[in-house]
Amino acid sequence: MALAPNTSNKRETVCIFGTGDFGRALGHKMIQSGYPVVFGSRSTQISSLIPKGAEVLSHAEAAQKAAIIIIAIQRQHYNFLIPLTEILHGKVLVDVSNNLKINEHPESNAEYLAQLVPGAKVVKAFNTVSAWALQSGTLDASRQVFVCGDDMEAKQMVMNIVRALGLTPLDQGSLLAAQEIENYPLRLFPMWKFPILLSFGLASFFFFYCLIRNVIYPYVYENKDFSFFIAISIPNRICPILALILLALVYLPGVLAAIIQLYRGTKYHRFPDWLDKWMLCRKQLGLVALAFASLHVLYTLVIPIRYFVRWRMSSQIISQVLNNKTEPLDTTNAWLSDSYVALGILGFFLFVLLGITSLPSVSNNVNWREFRFVQSKLGYLTLILCTAHTLVYGGKRFLSPSSYRWYLPNAYMLSLIIPCMVLVVKFVLIFPCLDKPLTRIRQGWERNPQYSEQSHYIINKSAV
Amino acid sequence: MALAPNTSNKRETVCIFGTGDFGRALGHKMIQSGYPVVFGSRSTQISSLIPKGAEVLSHAEAAQKAAIIIIAIQRQHYNFLIPLTEILHGKVLVDVSNNLKINEHPESNAEYLAQLVPGAKVVKAFNTVSAWALQSGTLDASRQVFVCGDDMEAKQMVMNIVRALGLTPLDQGSLLAAQEIENYPLRLFPMWKFPILLSFGLASFFFFYCLIRNVIYPYVYENKDFSFFIAISIPNRICPILALILLALVYLPGVLAAIIQLYRGTKYHRFPDWLDKWMLCRKQLGLVALAFASLHVLYTLVIPIRYFVRWRMSSQIISQVLNNKTEPLDTTNAWLSDSYVALGILGFFLFVLLGITSLPSVSNNVNWREFRFVQSKLGYLTLILCTAHTLVYGGKRFLSPSSYRWYLPNAYMLSLIIPCMVLVVKFVLIFPCLDKPLTRIRQGWERNPQYSEQSHYIINKSAV
Amino acid sequence: MALAPNTSNKRETVCIFGTGDFGRALGHKMIQSGYPVVFGSRSTQISSLIPKGAEVLSHAEAAQKAAIIIIAIQRQHYNFLIPLTEILHGKVLVDVSNNLKINEHPESNAEYLAQLVPGAKVVKAFNTVSAWALQSGTLDASRQVFVCGDDMEAKQMVMNIVRALGLTPLDQGSLLAAQEIENYPLRLFPMWKFPILLSFGLASFFFFYCLIRNVIYPYVYENKDFSFFIAISIPNRICPILALILLALVYLPGVLAAIIQLYRGTKYHRFPDWLDKWMLCRKQLGLVALAFASLHVLYTLVIPIRYFVRWRMSSQIISQVLNNKTEPLDTTNAWLSDSYVALGILGFFLFVLLGITSLPSVSNNVNWREFRFVQSKLGYLTLILCTAHTLVYGGKRFLSPSSYRWYLPNAYMLSLIIPCMVLVVKFVLIFPCLDKPLTRIRQGWERNPQYSEQSHYIINKSAV
Repeated sequence: MALAPNTSNKRETVCIFGTGDFGRALGHKMIQSGYPVVFGSRSTQISSLIPKGAEVLSHAEAAQKAAIIIIAIQRQHYNFLIPLTEILHGKVLVDVSNNLKINEHPESNAEYLAQLVPGAKVVKAFNTVSAWALQSGTLDASRQVFVCGDDMEAKQMVMNIVRALGLTPLDQGSLLAAQEIENYPLRLFPMWKFPILLSFGLASFFFFYCLIRNVIYPYVYENKDFSFFIAISIPNRICPILALILLALVYLPGVLAAIIQLYRGTKYHRFPDWLDKWMLCRKQLGLVALAFASLHVLYTLVIPIRYFVRWRMSSQIISQVLNNKTEPLDTTNAWLSDSYVALGILGFFLFVLLGITSLPSVSNNVNWREFRFVQSKLGYLTLILCTAHTLVYGGKRFLSPSSYRWYLPNAYMLSLIIPCMVLVVKFVLIFPCLDKPLTRIRQGWERNPQYSEQSHYIINKSAV
Repeated sequence: MALAPNTSNKRETVCIFGTGDFGRALGHKMIQSGYPVVFGSRSTQISSLIPKGAEVLSHAEAAQKAAIIIIAIQRQHYNFLIPLTEILHGKVLVDVSNNLKINEHPESNAEYLAQLVPGAKVVKAFNTVSAWALQSGTLDASRQVFVCGDDMEAKQMVMNIVRALGLTPLDQGSLLAAQEIENYPLRLFPMWKFPILLSFGLASFFFFYCLIRNVIYPYVYENKDFSFFIAISIPNRICPILALILLALVYLPGVLAAIIQLYRGTKYHRFPDWLDKWMLCRKQLGLVALAFASLHVLYTLVIPIRYFVRWRMSSQIISQVLNNKTEPLDTTNAWLSDSYVALGILGFFLFVLLGITSLPSVSNNVNWREFRFVQSKLGYLTLILCTAHTLVYGGKRFLSPSSYRWYLPNAYMLSLIIPCMVLVVKFVLIFPCLDKPLTRIRQGWERNPQYSEQSHYIINKSAV
Repeated sequence: MALAPNTSNKRETVCIFGTGDFGRALGHKMIQSGYPVVFGSRSTQISSLIPKGAEVLSHAEAAQKAAIIIIAIQRQHYNFLIPLTEILHGKVLVDVSNNLKINEHPESNAEYLAQLVPGAKVVKAFNTVSAWALQSGTLDASRQVFVCGDDMEAKQMVMNIVRALGLTPLDQGSLLAAQEIENYPLRLFPMWKFPILLSFGLASFFFFYCLIRNVIYPYVYENKDFSFFIAISIPNRICPILALILLALVYLPGVLAAIIQLYRGTKYHRFPDWLDKWMLCRKQLGLVALAFASLHVLYTLVIPIRYFVRWRMSSQIISQVLNNKTEPLDTTNAWLSDSYVALGILGFFLFVLLGITSLPSVSNNVNWREFRFVQSKLGYLTLILCTAHTLVYGGKRFLSPSSYRWYLPNAYMLSLIIPCMVLVVKFVLIFPCLDKPLTRIRQGWERNPQYSEQSHYIINKSAV
């Protein structure tokens, strides 16, 4: 009975077409796991590379020996299977191939295989595993093997083999999923590209901005060499600025979407494409912002260790002593200093909490209500705290002319523009006169319905 | 054949009863994924809101077109399905409804549906997914769809649809699980309520305690304005106190349970309810404690950056210079200062380790023996280190009368009561004369068995 | 019908052989979940320990009442099942037993059971759950129940029970997996043993090395008591040294493997055993290195809080004042100080990123290409930054004779040996004249093939 192939504790023979690197690696691993393996090859000489214990036969002979045939051949050679169609009828063909580019062919390799050999049950599997990992056993990365196919039984048989090799099969549904499975190993952090490019651009801008204000300006006017600011002082200005701007950019699309929905009076028109894409990479934007915030914290905490800071402090003290002048405690300064630090600590703490809840294993264990509570309520609280941290840091300096060098304001002032905008608009949107229609729109209500719906059914589904 | 509905790569028609927001969102997503969708509605006019490509028919006509019918209607309208019982016979009915309150009805909506339409195969699914998430594709939170039902085939069919929509189905067993699945989206961190309320209460108490000792007392007696201590100094006293108390409260119920078991001489009597509940939220208590410990670390590390601290240091140095008095290095002080800091660092380090191992993906990869080693052995080591950190911090000040203001001892002294109690009792319980009977009790032995058991079977199961 | 046992919402009777602790705990939990439970026991008296609601019958009678029989008995008593073979024919036997030692018996308990009762369908399950956890409901650790067996239907029935008890079944394939499942609960961090022992040995060596240089030497020559250095200063020397050495040891085996492959001209010879083992525990080595790096960061950040450091600073300032000598700002020193700190921050930041991507839930969500990018590219960047951090920290002191005490160089110099070696060899291996043949070898090419392969198939599989 096919559903229980191992009833007698003897594993079924597996046939592998192709004696290339991956075919051999897979064969080796299968023999280790107790499967009899037979290779189908054009040349039936046993090469020293073929794993010990495996037979090598012609394609037709090999295929007849097994119910499962792994096609470890490149797509352009699939044609040679056409003459074998009759022998392959009813067999399970496992497509393990990958492409060199995303969406290289109009249909996936597995679907192409299914068209070439109509009577066979094609299953896509193993393409996300590397030959090297199979051989060496160092499966540091994912042990997940995506499996898809139209035949449930065939899929079960392949998933049993996957499990027997110590890997985790993940059923991805029908063969339509093959395209995505074949694209999967070619991905290189696609969702991270925009946030990283954006932050790189912003970082460059602010680097030169700070370089002009903090290194070149004092060199020109006071002939002081502060070039060593490049190592810590300037990064420690760029990092908090980027963290704040990127955090605000996480919440800006939500605010924009709300305005669009209010204006249109419906949620059933699609958002513009750029807004859709922006909303999809909010998590990545937030994590990049968190990275910059963490760097800011580290850069800030090492301040008292730096030689320059220690030198400045001791020369201040010495000059006080020599001038015989002692400064009394300025309570306002103490309040300002302590409260901007405290706001920063609380903001960073909540930010890290947000980061932890975005870990896949944590976010899989919370429901929508909890996720929205964390990401929306706590998220806005984080944004408020971080903006307040920057505002209080500015403190009395906002209007002081000495903070404008060459008419350039302090960099942190620029960083406040977007966060303040987001917070103001969000604050306005909370007013009941705007919040109520928005909530109704998000529950499916339309201001100008083209057709007045008769349906009395309302589903209790919360909308974000 | 029902088990392999996609054999020909054509998706089966899905019928959706109800054209409300969630029904339409689900229909939209299904059409995107290649399913023909037909809506069953009282009014068969095609509204502009119905996703393009979907048919709208009467309920009876729509039901006949599909093997799977999604009931996107509120529970109170389920009655209208009774006349359709014959048509629905043998069909798969997918209940996607939610309630407004936990355990709103005696039986779950899905079980109620199964009673109303006895011939149908009811499957509960999709209730944890939000309409908005389906439409926008921003499935930031869980992609998990809990599925339960009594008919294996029907469940498989629904799980295939779930996978085709890009979501992860999680088989929760029979329809009995529906009640829990319907309660799931209504949860809002139920396990966290007690730890957070407790820590809020303790934090308020210690805030006012420290306010009196550190702000009001110097204001009354020395007329000094230390109100800015509210920003950092007082939080940095409250946080370590709460972290230590909460950490001790994680281990207190285990100690109490051991005493109760020793006293009763059996493990087969239930613990009092409050102890059971306490034991179930130990993980959350520990994580809240870790949050306070992290805040304490941040508050401590910013100390040298604070204006007040820098002012105090420079005024001390200046007064030394003006008095022409140099202080020699006090090795005892250096030892005390360095060792309480070192104990704190090691304690915090182990605490973070404990926190990391409580991440779901990490704790799923360790077995019971490893989990107990980390949570019990390393946990007690953490408690010992943190208690020692506080004791050494106190150092010589314990008996100094100046640390009692208005007869109030320093706040950290209060925080030591529970940890010291837990550690002393645990130390006593380690003695063989108590440890041996406890181990036997936990392996199933009884001091006063009502019936002397004949069974010679002993199962090698470790008990905590 | 066996596949849908709960069609009528009534649970099937479950029989448990054995009234020991684990049998009773399992029975208790099953009754709570709605299963009728019948115990099979030699003595049919109802003990007070048997959960309420359960029947106790003789083995034969109990077995006839249920399709599923849980064998909660020790392996050495399995013989008593032989007379029952006829009654047990076709029944599902669930083996829940564990051993006391890894690989205690040549075959697993479950396979032994299957041999003893040939007509039964043996399923291995529940052995990773503790009796205590079942009773108390505190399933803090894994809720995963590994299930394996040769009969698909039997396995499905057991997995349904597992789900009904609120646990997560994990299908591990055929009964061959039982050995591993039985060994699983006995593991205690086997992969961590080598990294932890190694770091313990290195830590001891460097502790005594630093003790001699930093405590004993000044005591002997200058009669100064710096014993308090043991608390923070010496650990803060040991931690970065260990972090750097262990991080280099993560990348050393990859470099050695490349050299071996280049020398042999093939990848099809096995590496020596020690290299294989080393490669398999690289992740653990890296995480231990990250732990030491984190401790180093904490130890470093508390520097300005330490009494000794504050004392040293104020005495330096006072001596400057008394000598009426002010030190001008030394830009070179500022550059050196700031850049070694900045390098350290960036290195640590990347190191933490590497650590986060090694969390199981994160690494499961990246593909091989992304994983290799992070672990190889970012990993080497981390090593370069950390090595540069140490080199710049040394700065001008490398050749200064005062840093050699008793002919012993500074400890950090020793720590640079392995990282520099790894980086130099890796740099050499990047040259095209070595990189090209290496890439070809890793794709399956052989310099001296014993048999020239005819196959024209090349599979696009990337090799590490």
